[in-house]
Amino acid sequence: MKTYLDCYPCFLRQALEAARLAGASEQRQQAVLRRVLDELRRVELSSTPPEIGDQVHRIVRQEVGEGDPYRTAKENSTRQALALYPRMKALLEEADDPLEEAVRLSIAGNIIDLATDRQYDLWDEVQRVRAQPFAIDDRALFHDALSRASEILYLADNAGETVFDRLLIEVLPLPVLYAVKGGPVLNDATRDDALAAGVDGPADIVDTGSDAPGTILGSCSEEFRRLYDTAELVLAKGQANYETLSSEGPKVFFLLQAKCAVIAHDVGVPVGSIILRQGRREGE
Amino acid sequence: MKTYLDCYPCFLRQALEAARLAGASEQRQQAVLRRVLDELRRVELSSTPPEIGDQVHRIVRQEVGEGDPYRTAKENSTRQALALYPRMKALLEEADDPLEEAVRLSIAGNIIDLATDRQYDLWDEVQRVRAQPFAIDDRALFHDALSRASEILYLADNAGETVFDRLLIEVLPLPVLYAVKGGPVLNDATRDDALAAGVDGPADIVDTGSDAPGTILGSCSEEFRRLYDTAELVLAKGQANYETLSSEGPKVFFLLQAKCAVIAHDVGVPVGSIILRQGRREGE
Repeated sequence: MKTYLDCYPCFLRQALEAARLAGASEQRQQAVLRRVLDELRRVELSSTPPEIGDQVHRIVRQEVGEGDPYRTAKENSTRQALALYPRMKALLEEADDPLEEAVRLSIAGNIIDLATDRQYDLWDEVQRVRAQPFAIDDRALFHDALSRASEILYLADNAGETVFDRLLIEVLPLPVLYAVKGGPVLNDATRDDALAAGVDGPADIVDTGSDAPGTILGSCSEEFRRLYDTAELVLAKGQANYETLSSEGPKVFFLLQAKCAVIAHDVGVPVGSIILRQGRREGE
Repeated sequence: MKTYLDCYPCFLRQALEAARLAGASEQRQQAVLRRVLDELRRVELSSTPPEIGDQVHRIVRQEVGEGDPYRTAKENSTRQALALYPRMKALLEEADDPLEEAVRLSIAGNIIDLATDRQYDLWDEVQRVRAQPFAIDDRALFHDALSRASEILYLADNAGETVFDRLLIEVLPLPVLYAVKGGPVLNDATRDDALAAGVDGPADIVDTGSDAPGTILGSCSEEFRRLYDTAELVLAKGQANYETLSSEGPKVFFLLQAKCAVIAHDVGVPVGSIILRQGRREGE
């Protein structure tokens, strides 16, 4: 997906938030924003938003130090999600169609996103998404793909959402490789976040070798590229994975909520929609 | 009031919205944003937000032509507000304290603001503000100032809000000079907007000679500066007038809603607060 002009204010907001979370002084925050302004001056709209976000968060790291400004926020998200795990597990045990229920829970978990500025109550979100019709509903194609694949490459999104992913993985009928980021960026899940959520029980954890948002294949490790290229079925969570892989063809299925107006417009659905969509090729 | 880093994303959003309202192509919108990025690169945070906004909207006008991109939006706002005029007039006629009621109506009208991205229902806003406690309440000082002045210089804010101002002016016990912008910027009221709202009945309309947001005294006409300098009592509506005049001393009273987090923080109140505040001097 290309970058829209509406993304520019959002990049500035994200950079400012990350710099503040890292404890930067106002002067340092301004230095970050000035470099982000320069970067936005140069960007091509044909880049995907995560490609630009990658540069933006690289600037933040260079200005305020390498650490992980979102670590506490991520740990809080994981703790909150784990607190709901038993109730969600009970829902799955009572469900007529546990896979359908687990897909919905996984989409509900996609509300956890510090890149947007929305407020939410996690359990309210679960109830909303359990009842909400899909705006894009490729479930039949997904079931078909599941019946023909031997393994799933599952691309993680955010910390805390990992707990919801774990519930889906526990129900999926195939072995799962769960791919997290190679290093911290925003509140995206890293290996530590996946371990804290207990995803290593039902899945093998791998990392993309990249600390860019989404999955920018060109910046991933060779090892991950091989996994991706040979995967029969890829399940990609969240907006940034949609933004980076939406034209990568039909072996990718996207599970997400359309939380910002730009993505909702690109997908062609209202903001707040829940989506299970099969990937397409450029121009399809 | 100084500019905060949080204002940067907002300037970009405003520039993009204005360029789109003016019918600019995506290429032209991007040209606007690139120039705004350059401008933000250069700004000093000691400038007030309207001083930077002035430069931003000047760029939009240079790139997309002089016209008034907000004209239709302004006409709609005025029409919607005029439709409520009879109901609001009836409220005033039944009120125990018509001045108190009219001050609240005027603050309710301040919700009309295309510079922020909030959604609202106008009549719901009226009901909310009629019942809401003041977060800053200098009404006693305002009544005292009214009793000692012979005329009021009333600084207008947005088109449509003008109708709510008219209701207040009809109740105020002193002659009113109603100051509008010298030319279009955002949805700020110009002479046409004041006339469409019928403000010329109870008040004399003057203009600031400036098409900057708020009231940047240095960019106003000499004629308006004389009016301002000799005024005994200035009633300043809305956020931008607060941003530009907050340190101009005690003859200015601000009537506004704190609609954005930055202004709410600067004033020291929650977002959504209603405010009647006497001006201070720098450092007070």
